[in-house]
Amino acid sequence: MTSSTSVPEGKTTGDLDELKRLLSQVSDLNAAAGLMSWDQETQMPPEAARVRGLQMATLAGLSHELFTAPRLSELLEQAQPGEDETDVALLKVTRRDHAKATRLPGAFVEDQSRAASEAHHAWIEARQNNDFASFAPHLQKMIDLARRYADFQGYEEHPYDALIDDYEPGMRVAQVRSIFTDLRERTLPLLRRIVAAGDATDYSVLSRPFAPTAQREFALKIAREAFGLLPDFSRLDESAHPFQTNFSRSDLRVTTRFDEHYFPMSLFGTWHETGHAMYERGISERLERTPLSRGASLGVHESQSRMFENLLARSRPFWQRYFGEFAQAAPDVARGQDAESLYRAVNRVRPDLIRVEADEVTYNFHIMLRFELELALLEGTLKVSELPEAWNARMGEFLGVTPPDDTQGVLQDIHWSAGLIGYFPTYTLGNLLSVQLLDAAKQDADIAADLQKAEYGRLREWLVQNVHQFGRSRTPGEIVMGATGRPLSADAYVTYLEDKYGDIYGLS
Amino acid sequence: MTSSTSVPEGKTTGDLDELKRLLSQVSDLNAAAGLMSWDQETQMPPEAARVRGLQMATLAGLSHELFTAPRLSELLEQAQPGEDETDVALLKVTRRDHAKATRLPGAFVEDQSRAASEAHHAWIEARQNNDFASFAPHLQKMIDLARRYADFQGYEEHPYDALIDDYEPGMRVAQVRSIFTDLRERTLPLLRRIVAAGDATDYSVLSRPFAPTAQREFALKIAREAFGLLPDFSRLDESAHPFQTNFSRSDLRVTTRFDEHYFPMSLFGTWHETGHAMYERGISERLERTPLSRGASLGVHESQSRMFENLLARSRPFWQRYFGEFAQAAPDVARGQDAESLYRAVNRVRPDLIRVEADEVTYNFHIMLRFELELALLEGTLKVSELPEAWNARMGEFLGVTPPDDTQGVLQDIHWSAGLIGYFPTYTLGNLLSVQLLDAAKQDADIAADLQKAEYGRLREWLVQNVHQFGRSRTPGEIVMGATGRPLSADAYVTYLEDKYGDIYGLS
Repeated sequence: MTSSTSVPEGKTTGDLDELKRLLSQVSDLNAAAGLMSWDQETQMPPEAARVRGLQMATLAGLSHELFTAPRLSELLEQAQPGEDETDVALLKVTRRDHAKATRLPGAFVEDQSRAASEAHHAWIEARQNNDFASFAPHLQKMIDLARRYADFQGYEEHPYDALIDDYEPGMRVAQVRSIFTDLRERTLPLLRRIVAAGDATDYSVLSRPFAPTAQREFALKIAREAFGLLPDFSRLDESAHPFQTNFSRSDLRVTTRFDEHYFPMSLFGTWHETGHAMYERGISERLERTPLSRGASLGVHESQSRMFENLLARSRPFWQRYFGEFAQAAPDVARGQDAESLYRAVNRVRPDLIRVEADEVTYNFHIMLRFELELALLEGTLKVSELPEAWNARMGEFLGVTPPDDTQGVLQDIHWSAGLIGYFPTYTLGNLLSVQLLDAAKQDADIAADLQKAEYGRLREWLVQNVHQFGRSRTPGEIVMGATGRPLSADAYVTYLEDKYGDIYGLS
Repeated sequence: MTSSTSVPEGKTTGDLDELKRLLSQVSDLNAAAGLMSWDQETQMPPEAARVRGLQMATLAGLSHELFTAPRLSELLEQAQPGEDETDVALLKVTRRDHAKATRLPGAFVEDQSRAASEAHHAWIEARQNNDFASFAPHLQKMIDLARRYADFQGYEEHPYDALIDDYEPGMRVAQVRSIFTDLRERTLPLLRRIVAAGDATDYSVLSRPFAPTAQREFALKIAREAFGLLPDFSRLDESAHPFQTNFSRSDLRVTTRFDEHYFPMSLFGTWHETGHAMYERGISERLERTPLSRGASLGVHESQSRMFENLLARSRPFWQRYFGEFAQAAPDVARGQDAESLYRAVNRVRPDLIRVEADEVTYNFHIMLRFELELALLEGTLKVSELPEAWNARMGEFLGVTPPDDTQGVLQDIHWSAGLIGYFPTYTLGNLLSVQLLDAAKQDADIAADLQKAEYGRLREWLVQNVHQFGRSRTPGEIVMGATGRPLSADAYVTYLEDKYGDIYGLS
């Protein structure tokens, strides 16, 4: 926007420099918006909410205007990247973002934003009153908007392709369907064997009292020592719903929440968000303040959070190494326990109603259910009014449980009320990728040996080299191929579940 | 910037609405920049500093561009305010801001910003090394820039008029000089009598241990109960240098700092910043997200912070009312003390070297010294190289003390390194105004009676009605006349000092 550093037009590198400068302004504005949002969730006094909402809307609008302004658009169209690989990627990714941003009419964006705001409030109320019918018209509106969104963006095979592409660039319904079918066919029998086996673990240990301040201290100590989340470039705060956000690779903000009588929530929540944060930390400094300086996709992001949370912090070597420190931090919880009993307690498999509390075996069924229902709603083969019934039927089919009410069923997630349709599959794609990546890393014998000692320094370096550093300069597909040598599949994850839970539940 | 809500051109009210919408965008962007700055001082991890600096520069640049963009400029020029008084003030104030913003060439602003950044670093180093000579060329540059700034803005009598007008709109050198001369002539004899009198108060109580967490709790309790700083719309954090900032009247951020062995710093610091915060809180909601929604000037602002810090919290009734609670919070400090001894301890008068720690009697001499030196530097009658000598000479003349080195002398303040020349007088103007306002409020017998009970609810309402609510819609001069019936002078302050310290030091 400033003209003080004007560059002679027509010169290729000059144009690129100017483009980068304009993009860095968009990035800075987005960072400010991100800070406003973080502050809102962690620091802001309650009465500030109304004006803060207006301020955040202004920043979102200005960011869109800057990104689609004539000069930036012109530079983006004309720019020639030269030899530099990163510049080539920058132009490719930015052109794709730009095309997506400019395909939507302003009136549609406003419509969507207003409808989402109304749907969100309706969802909160519907949940409180267990009243799906009052939310149904809003959900219908969000689905109609999603269909129109897909039409604006265009797609080849399925409108859902246009939706999922926003969260998982390059992913298509056909591929998700094929992976999910395979996963379901191979893990449903495993789940049934686990449920049939039962076990003698004392799970009451999970609800023993553990003071929130002590939980925080222990969670943070591990996040620092084991996972590298140093205070020099990060902080941990409390919020109603845990999240990770960041305003540069040197300004990572992780949040968690505490329940004195259910410590796994804060500990594994912190380590999950730490996985997200360390991904952003690992992105090359060269990409700073460009559109490439973010994780490649939600699925790749989730692979990192799940790796820390589940593959590392829910592993036997982790508890062997850290049980002593845990016992010091939580003597009441640790009394009469040992590393093995804690390991088993935090790996309980139990088919249940709520996605966010689900274990490694049942979690993906929650996602597959949502994926199928989203597809059916978008295709029009399922009416919104039939949704609760369809939900409950599938819960019975997959997990053998039936929600007693819609609040614990179809109304449990925030996503649809926010218009986030096509988002859910990335959770399971991330789960699958976490194991596929860890298996690839374990090809290095040193890393494999380290894991047996709950030593993660070399693994983290491997992740920076093979995943993190690229940011969005490689597609998720390229990252998976480059790091693991094969496309994403359910294979590694199924084997992981069979080995781990076969051992815990004594299935042979 | 958006064109979605376009208004038919030429229609007066329509133009004004569009103008207000554009101004609200500038306000929102400034709020985001303010949050980035608050976060930097209170929350941000240290490694984030470099990128945060770039982000804040971008936001400052965008804000300037939005405010001086062609469409806003055109609307501002054409707009007709109609009957509404607030609209009349909005146009007047905004046109003045706009004229100031557009008179400066972009190259000059960049120059100034770069020089200030370099001067700031040079000042930090010079202070550490007690090396004024290394800072001198930077100070010279800041003075040259201030002179050029004054030339760009224009002035009638003195270039300093153009500088002080930014902080105290409408104030001129001649008026400051006249007030300061009067103040000096009437308080220097008082100071000499106090010093000669001596007293028997045990000041060692001020350095007794008082745990920072307990200091915080007590400071905050009083800020809430006595001064109205409720957690619904405010928060208190820690920072290296105390300040108040806000992102709306419902989002006030106060900071303080703690010294376990000098509790007055955190207590009076918190209540000082609370005075600033409650001013912003009292500004009419109608002015929200407009250029009028700020305090009228630095001097009026300081009158509010000083009133809470000194006139209320350093009053005898305050300690009579709160000594009991203080003793509960700080039993080690309170041992063997009573309300009267605490009251006397926190009102110690002692000529000393450092402005920010100065008492009510000596403080203004620190300011008068800086004012005289700034004038002389700007006029060229004093060379930068002669400044330390001139500083030390005046310290001897006013306060009878001589700095042992420049770090405790001419290098003690950050202001000049930041190019803030013309800013210092507002501290003393605020001190004077605080008493003039309180005297006016005490014309209400109920308020006067309340003050004897350290009851401040009615006083705060009076301040909202007579000072706060107007924001910048009235000039400082109009506010002073409206609230007190006469222009600002040293009279009330001098009488206040004579009464209060005559009593404490037994001068009759």
